[in-house]
Amino acid sequence: MSFYDKLKFDANGLIPAIVQEQKTGRVLMMAWMNRAALEKTIETGRTHFWSRSRRKFWMKGESSGHVQAVKDIAFDCDGDTLLIQVEQTGAACHEGYQSCFFRSVEKDGFKIAEPQLQTPEQIYGKK
Amino acid sequence: MSFYDKLKFDANGLIPAIVQEQKTGRVLMMAWMNRAALEKTIETGRTHFWSRSRRKFWMKGESSGHVQAVKDIAFDCDGDTLLIQVEQTGAACHEGYQSCFFRSVEKDGFKIAEPQLQTPEQIYGKK
Repeated sequence: MSFYDKLKFDANGLIPAIVQEQKTGRVLMMAWMNRAALEKTIETGRTHFWSRSRRKFWMKGESSGHVQAVKDIAFDCDGDTLLIQVEQTGAACHEGYQSCFFRSVEKDGFKIAEPQLQTPEQIYGKK
Repeated sequence: MSFYDKLKFDANGLIPAIVQEQKTGRVLMMAWMNRAALEKTIETGRTHFWSRSRRKFWMKGESSGHVQAVKDIAFDCDGDTLLIQVEQTGAACHEGYQSCFFRSVEKDGFKIAEPQLQTPEQIYGKK
């Protein structure tokens, strides 16, 4: 049986994909895939997603060079979420942090919980 | 500034919450919260969610006893996903695995990647 038969894409044909750095266990980001993005991810060994806001297919790192080499793809009991283990080049977050989850809740606010490795200008150039 | 101001709940008032076991780094599950579930999670220190299929507020472990003690709540750069660090009692998955992500994709199929700790009957009793 193909594992695709176990997956449930939502009404928009999308499934959320959690991306975890295999070496450190750090959860880096969450983004959405349609079936074509998942097929391309498997075919190329690089993560590909569907941007809901830009309505556009994209490869992680296509602008920044911060690509993700896929090491494992798991799916959950309900078949409606993916967990992808990767080797991350550079910062995963477009704001220059290792992980997009760089802010943690604190009483009455939040804190930045990890160092910024690069500024967006360093990653993408001045705009 | 309240961190709630940084969060974007979707059109249905929901935000996905990734749950990670702090001690091991294992990603355990992904479920959805509305604002009330998030507030209850913060207030009680136990994860609460909104079930989209059952249209019901629920506490993780309310039937199984497999509760999650909250250690940290992070949110991503876009403010549209949560990452919650927990101490997990028992198996996180209702199918008796430590993680809901117990299946990994393989060429032409998938494999079970971790041992089943308990059967659902052992957790929930015979139905």
